[in-house]
Amino acid sequence: MAAGYRVAVVGATGAVGQEFLTVLKERGFPIAELKVLADESWDGKQIAFGDEQLTVQTAVPESFRGVEIALFATNGPVSEALVPEAVKRGAVAIDNSSAFRLDPEIPLVVPEVNPQDVGWHKGIIANPNCSTILFVVPIKPLHDAARIKRAVVSTYQAVSGAGAAGLDELLTQTRQVLAGESIQPGVFPYQIAFNLIPHIDVFDENGYSREEMKMVLETRKILHDQNLKISATTVRVPVFRSHSESVNIETERKLTPGAARAILAGAPGVVVEDDPRGLKYPMPLFSSNHDEVFVGRIRDDLSCEQGLNFWLCGDQLRKGAATNAVQIAELLVNDRPARRI
Amino acid sequence: MAAGYRVAVVGATGAVGQEFLTVLKERGFPIAELKVLADESWDGKQIAFGDEQLTVQTAVPESFRGVEIALFATNGPVSEALVPEAVKRGAVAIDNSSAFRLDPEIPLVVPEVNPQDVGWHKGIIANPNCSTILFVVPIKPLHDAARIKRAVVSTYQAVSGAGAAGLDELLTQTRQVLAGESIQPGVFPYQIAFNLIPHIDVFDENGYSREEMKMVLETRKILHDQNLKISATTVRVPVFRSHSESVNIETERKLTPGAARAILAGAPGVVVEDDPRGLKYPMPLFSSNHDEVFVGRIRDDLSCEQGLNFWLCGDQLRKGAATNAVQIAELLVNDRPARRI
Repeated sequence: MAAGYRVAVVGATGAVGQEFLTVLKERGFPIAELKVLADESWDGKQIAFGDEQLTVQTAVPESFRGVEIALFATNGPVSEALVPEAVKRGAVAIDNSSAFRLDPEIPLVVPEVNPQDVGWHKGIIANPNCSTILFVVPIKPLHDAARIKRAVVSTYQAVSGAGAAGLDELLTQTRQVLAGESIQPGVFPYQIAFNLIPHIDVFDENGYSREEMKMVLETRKILHDQNLKISATTVRVPVFRSHSESVNIETERKLTPGAARAILAGAPGVVVEDDPRGLKYPMPLFSSNHDEVFVGRIRDDLSCEQGLNFWLCGDQLRKGAATNAVQIAELLVNDRPARRI
Repeated sequence: MAAGYRVAVVGATGAVGQEFLTVLKERGFPIAELKVLADESWDGKQIAFGDEQLTVQTAVPESFRGVEIALFATNGPVSEALVPEAVKRGAVAIDNSSAFRLDPEIPLVVPEVNPQDVGWHKGIIANPNCSTILFVVPIKPLHDAARIKRAVVSTYQAVSGAGAAGLDELLTQTRQVLAGESIQPGVFPYQIAFNLIPHIDVFDENGYSREEMKMVLETRKILHDQNLKISATTVRVPVFRSHSESVNIETERKLTPGAARAILAGAPGVVVEDDPRGLKYPMPLFSSNHDEVFVGRIRDDLSCEQGLNFWLCGDQLRKGAATNAVQIAELLVNDRPARRI
């Protein structure tokens, strides 16, 4: 096999896991050997990696023997159980679950925002929440330019955030509604087809959902700014795979829409789509299957002198999960000789 | 016929017009005679009013001879042409278009909020924009209790806002997407099925859509508070007939979530649905075909000491349009002898 790293993808059969494989292939990540791991129900099944067929193995601690980079597309409990096993066996784990994100000993990284934090990892690097990743990519350059004091964000989140089962549920329920059949919610607490659900993850005592608190706490950690004030409302919408966010920021120094547009046009990972009269603004339909965060509707906040509004869209499975994790893996291997990550 | 008023519904065959008829019937509005008017393509067709069948007539100036109350479910240009003709013939016109809403000589009324403004009409009463109506119903009692200084609102607006054609377009496009067919947008600038469009009405030079500016300017007029600062982002979502809004308010006096809940629970036209852990929160699916504004997710804004967040849903065709207009008509006829409105 080609020179490269021994890589494992854990949870390879889920929506994010599949996207990990797609993105690793697309970006030509240097792979010497690739293990695809999942729970035992998948053991022995074949999944595609480009033109190759790979055999899924059950993820157990011993699976990580010899693995150098382990990408986890697993839920919190599975990550908590297996990530330490991978690290114990010498792998660097990049984990997409929320299990380790707020641990002060573990870096939480968005490569366009805080690539330097990869430097102090002790075996685990956490991949942030999808809405948070899409949020911080444009927030970082604006914060650097004008110091954001406060942000109010309302999200419009795709069903892919609930994995392959979420995608299936929207499709199935939509067919059922059109056929006049009754709906039995499964992944989501209520019907999501032609509906909105202001409930993602579980609720804390303060009335916020965990998803909302992730946006607050993860953003502060990624930006290294515990004073940043953020108010989030997260809402599930009947869209397949791109999240959108309506963002309002208040800055210390006035940021005109023109200045913000110029800053964002030069920012890594951002595409400015902002000519509303020319019908140019970001939409989930056109940001799906792309790696960038699309930003538009940039305008003065009429309710606040130092305020600015904008609208963003980004693919939840790609930049919101897989692309960001593979970019972290690229940071690990760049500028370092193979086998010395 | 029963004792009552001679009423005309103009644009009776559209989504809002149909809802006017439903709501007039449901609420037992005192009607002596009902004319259903539309453009000439509908002339002579039958439409239902409860168990009766009414014959649609082409709306022309002479249609309003003898009419006492004319409910207009027409667009701006049609309202501009016909509303003055109705008034000239002695009718009071309640107009759902945006044509007259910001005219200082014309009251803009939400009966739960500013019923007194009906008192100074000179023949025309404007029915506000749907998102604005749903917004001001809970905003008013909170403003009275704690003085709102600033509000940031992001909307999630149903396709019924674009009338019967909008409803058809979501249904047709959804079928087409499921069948793998190509989509030709008609009413909306882009595909709305499984998508979001941050564009409602046309854009002004300041980067805001007219829909967003309606929320700012109409709210100020209805609340008689030109100092109220409002920042709005309005977004079309693939939902049939209920609008939702994520609202953030900053008040002069601190309003705890408990106090806000108590105020809203006693407010006219509001239903509080707020027990997120018990899976109780407003959703478009369950607020459709109701007249109230449903409010939940009431919580402290973590980014602002005097801040409060909440989430609301309400039926766009009912409280957002028809119910509000019929309530205005009820204000006109209550406490007044028939034939003296």
